Amino acid sequence: MWQLYQFPLCPFSRKVRLMLGEKGVGYELVRESPWQRRDEFLHLNPAGQTPVMVQGALALSDSSAICEYFEEVIEKAPMLGGDAAARAEIRRLVAWFDEKFYGEVVAPLMHERMLKRIVHRASPDAKALRDAMRQANAHMDYVDWLLDHRRWLGGPVLSLADLAAAAHISVADYLGGIDWRGHDQTKQWYSGLKSRPSFRPLLAERMEVIGPPAHYDKVDFGE
Amino acid sequence: MWQLYQFPLCPFSRKVRLMLGEKGVGYELVRESPWQRRDEFLHLNPAGQTPVMVQGALALSDSSAICEYFEEVIEKAPMLGGDAAARAEIRRLVAWFDEKFYGEVVAPLMHERMLKRIVHRASPDAKALRDAMRQANAHMDYVDWLLDHRRWLGGPVLSLADLAAAAHISVADYLGGIDWRGHDQTKQWYSGLKSRPSFRPLLAERMEVIGPPAHYDKVDFGE
Ligand SMILES: N[C@@H](CCC(=O)N[C@@H](CS)C(=O)NCC(=O)O)C(=O)O
Ligand SMILES: N[C@@H](CCC(=O)N[C@@H](CS)C(=O)NCC(=O)O)C(=O)O
Repeated sequence: MWQLYQFPLCPFSRKVRLMLGEKGVGYELVRESPWQRRDEFLHLNPAGQTPVMVQGALALSDSSAICEYFEEVIEKAPMLGGDAAARAEIRRLVAWFDEKFYGEVVAPLMHERMLKRIVHRASPDAKALRDAMRQANAHMDYVDWLLDHRRWLGGPVLSLADLAAAAHISVADYLGGIDWRGHDQTKQWYSGLKSRPSFRPLLAERMEVIGPPAHYDKVDFGE
Repeated sequence: MWQLYQFPLCPFSRKVRLMLGEKGVGYELVRESPWQRRDEFLHLNPAGQTPVMVQGALALSDSSAICEYFEEVIEKAPMLGGDAAARAEIRRLVAWFDEKFYGEVVAPLMHERMLKRIVHRASPDAKALRDAMRQANAHMDYVDWLLDHRRWLGGPVLSLADLAAAAHISVADYLGGIDWRGHDQTKQWYSGLKSRPSFRPLLAERMEVIGPPAHYDKVDFGE
């Protein structure tokens, strides 16, 4: 049985979990708080980051390397389908969410709303939160635009681009960083993802001391 | 003919160029300075980052998506060889250099020594430079350690892990950020890479106004 080292609000772990869920790969969760920099964890992944997946002597880290691994070994539910150009477009979008959406939206929200609370015991900075929410809005415009041109984010079929986007958006949404008004296409797409069996367990989990807004786990946003 | 949008000190473009060189793919360089945020360039890559590769209507961006693309379409000189676990290890290391080495070493060096000079017209900050060099040294220890255990960084054969590492190290070296003393294994490995035909053209290029140290383009480090 695979073990996945993660914490409930790690977006990279969520991306991996959505992929494993779609492919039907079973795993056991191991709670890891990377900011504690445990020696045993650094031994598994010298980068000190979640997610890490372990089975026997094999320890895989970096969420993209992990996703490529399961795409190669499990044929079911391909998440990088199509020809080489289609795959390049999916990978470009995964990198977009993992780097830009994460760096501009999720990381500042996690810092202000989660790490300051549980590690630094400080209050969030209102300006940093406002900036992250403004960036989130610009990103949601881009997702709206993609969905005006394509059935799914990466092309005609569900792909890792959708899973990466949903993983990061879900963490930003949990942390109160997403204003859904005016993003109808994205909302409809996200509602479809929320109702998938791979997504349900993620939406049910809670991070200690921080609660999500009421609409967070509702497929219809509680409307 | 492929066109590659880049500037001489972009490490991600260097990684792609090393890969194309090893695989024997021809391309034409197009000089792009992403900090100018040209509209036409943002149209090719909304992330506004180099490298971008263009051929006809196809525009590929994100260096990892580009490398995976050429690995898929050109069989010659596989750079992600081996079984799924071996490939995961190569991809983990590529991410290590693209994220950690870049973020801790290359990005601060580029900011202090290149962008401050050509964009902000400011002087480099001595403490930021010292920190980047200290981080570089820790990374070189890790490379030494890998080479104590393996023939090449990712395993028994040359792989994208070596190309990514050499790309980032070469930019840090150009910017005076690498102290080679005490890193004999890494030096020997890097000397071997420097002598490859894929690397020679990169070492011959110069970024306007900033020159590299004397040892930079010498296979034997001028010793
Ligand atoms: N490239 C990595 C990034 C993972 C990452 O940044 N994880 C965060 C948690 S969401 C972390 O562990 N941060 C702690 C640190 O960087 O020290 C991946 O895709 O797995
Ligand atoms: N994930 C991208 C990162 C590329 C990147 O950061 N490029 C830098 C130049 S070395 C850049 O264009 N920076 C300008 C910006 O981020 O606005 C890749 O692998 O291609």
